[in-house]
Amino acid sequence: MDIRQDALDNLSYGLYVVTSHLDGKLNGQISDALMQVTAEAPCVAVSICKDELTHEYIEKSGVLAVSVLAQSTPMPFIGLFGFRSGRDMDKLSRVSYRVGTTGCPLVLENIVAVFEGNVIARQDLSTHTIFTAEVTEAEILQRVTPLTYEYYIRHMKGKVPRNSPTYHG
Amino acid sequence: MDIRQDALDNLSYGLYVVTSHLDGKLNGQISDALMQVTAEAPCVAVSICKDELTHEYIEKSGVLAVSVLAQSTPMPFIGLFGFRSGRDMDKLSRVSYRVGTTGCPLVLENIVAVFEGNVIARQDLSTHTIFTAEVTEAEILQRVTPLTYEYYIRHMKGKVPRNSPTYHG
Repeated sequence: MDIRQDALDNLSYGLYVVTSHLDGKLNGQISDALMQVTAEAPCVAVSICKDELTHEYIEKSGVLAVSVLAQSTPMPFIGLFGFRSGRDMDKLSRVSYRVGTTGCPLVLENIVAVFEGNVIARQDLSTHTIFTAEVTEAEILQRVTPLTYEYYIRHMKGKVPRNSPTYHG
Repeated sequence: MDIRQDALDNLSYGLYVVTSHLDGKLNGQISDALMQVTAEAPCVAVSICKDELTHEYIEKSGVLAVSVLAQSTPMPFIGLFGFRSGRDMDKLSRVSYRVGTTGCPLVLENIVAVFEGNVIARQDLSTHTIFTAEVTEAEILQRVTPLTYEYYIRHMKGKVPRNSPTYHG
């Protein structure tokens, strides 16, 4: 393994479902590369692979939503959003969700909290875009422990999809 | 508390010392807002408050380094980098470090891994800048558990400084 990736594997993350919409269609995917970047007004940044359908939806609609996964989330639920493409199936039809004020779906199953907002800045990198969104609406669904990337890898023996920023080549 | 910040408090982070240099001077600060954003070539993004001396150093030098804190890091060590300003004291003179190929200091005490690189993109937000750096050099110092933001808050009863993206107003 590349020594650089070996060192970078010591960074800590949560796991989230990042969603958007376009032309009446909804989609979402798992992301670990998400963080709050300003406190006032509150903004989050997320790195999304340009190959992903969710990238196209966020790029064109200018809105995104985030559903924070609970530690108790079953593996098939993560598999649905993390290892299937919205080009082949309607992922949202398989889960409970509501549509937020941005038009993005907010997942309601296995979720700690949801929030959504408008993209205010983009950073175009080689394979990914960092979208920064100002959070306009948010809600806590249940006060339980959020799922971390470390728990997913170590305890759930989870794998990392090819388009993840933390993918091991 | 703002419901938006209450929801955003469910995001997961690590804790890092982010360093840079300028005109022969070295400085560093604690950050939680740091993530890998691309896998090939490996890049990390970090959100730094514009008021910080480290912001000025990264902005002008175009380089940064990251030292990943170990879970066993004592609170005074975090206080040195997180609650003191490099304008008032030479923080690096108080700890063990070496200078990397970018000229940035790599902290060697209480650290899991270090890496450094060149800033390839900037995103100018209201109060913070997101600096994205391509990682050129990296090293694992010890294979121990990294410190997470959640552990710092819950187990160490740590506080969040005013310039943090996750600061509670």
